[in-house]
Amino acid sequence: MITAARDDGAEDIPAPAEFDPLELRKALGQFPQGIVAVAAEVDGHPEVLVASSFTVGVSLEPPLVTVAVQHTSSTWPKLRDRASRLGISVLGAQQSELTRQLASTDRAGRFHGVERRIDGERALVLEGSPLWFTTRMHSQFTAGDHDVAVLEILDFGYDEASEGLVFHQSRFKGLTPLE
Amino acid sequence: MITAARDDGAEDIPAPAEFDPLELRKALGQFPQGIVAVAAEVDGHPEVLVASSFTVGVSLEPPLVTVAVQHTSSTWPKLRDRASRLGISVLGAQQSELTRQLASTDRAGRFHGVERRIDGERALVLEGSPLWFTTRMHSQFTAGDHDVAVLEILDFGYDEASEGLVFHQSRFKGLTPLE
Repeated sequence: MITAARDDGAEDIPAPAEFDPLELRKALGQFPQGIVAVAAEVDGHPEVLVASSFTVGVSLEPPLVTVAVQHTSSTWPKLRDRASRLGISVLGAQQSELTRQLASTDRAGRFHGVERRIDGERALVLEGSPLWFTTRMHSQFTAGDHDVAVLEILDFGYDEASEGLVFHQSRFKGLTPLE
Repeated sequence: MITAARDDGAEDIPAPAEFDPLELRKALGQFPQGIVAVAAEVDGHPEVLVASSFTVGVSLEPPLVTVAVQHTSSTWPKLRDRASRLGISVLGAQQSELTRQLASTDRAGRFHGVERRIDGERALVLEGSPLWFTTRMHSQFTAGDHDVAVLEILDFGYDEASEGLVFHQSRFKGLTPLE
């Protein structure tokens, strides 16, 4: 570990670690993550961002979730600044192809044929998702090269019969109960 | 949706939603989450906290992860305030029983028979985990009834052959590639 010597008697503070980016990504890929579509209608057009750095149960009172988004995202500023509500749809095992489409670089085609609902505030949720929320911004903070949005749940629905989906080791995977 | 009328011309701000807590928990349980053990040696004793509100890829430069911990946790203040480094071990499919043991209310028995390694700064990681990190606190913020700790990765290791584990619909589940 690299440490930067200090002469003020305080604990030595290590310099930021420098990792091989590919090796770090491969390591992080060992953590199974659910996937969500964050979406709203902005100026009459549906906008969506697919994220895997999403967490529920950040708080129960009030009910909060978080999502981390790269600073380089061009969709996030629209959703953050021009949508008063954000829909969050958790993607299920039947939606792996849909997930790829929603994350496509072909922005105009992302919603092609996608069944969705929109609430009075233009939050957008996908039909057939195992779990969805409508949310509003609670607070935001910066963490390195990402923004972390803390979102308050205003409404939710779920379908227990839906099968879960995670991204793990660079692949979509389904879930099976352990013995 | 309940809205609180305002007479200053600003957008109506809905009151916090009041949900049936059991129904909310059941909904949140539809989101598959990986599980981690956050651990360190504090005053010569191993301390551990099992968390499912954990996210990787919050930032790559610097490499940051987040974990959300309830304010009522009695272990978290020890780890937060009295450990200079925190070990994070992602739990794998072979470790579901270990996960239960580490989360047990029998605090003295949590590490009974558990193989672990400790680094020079007393961060503690579990042998056999698919992925582990040693971290230090980067920043913290409060989100409702939880603290969210943003942790900087100082070191990591992984085992690609390990099988992943998620908690979903109140059960431990393994992962299987989709066709």
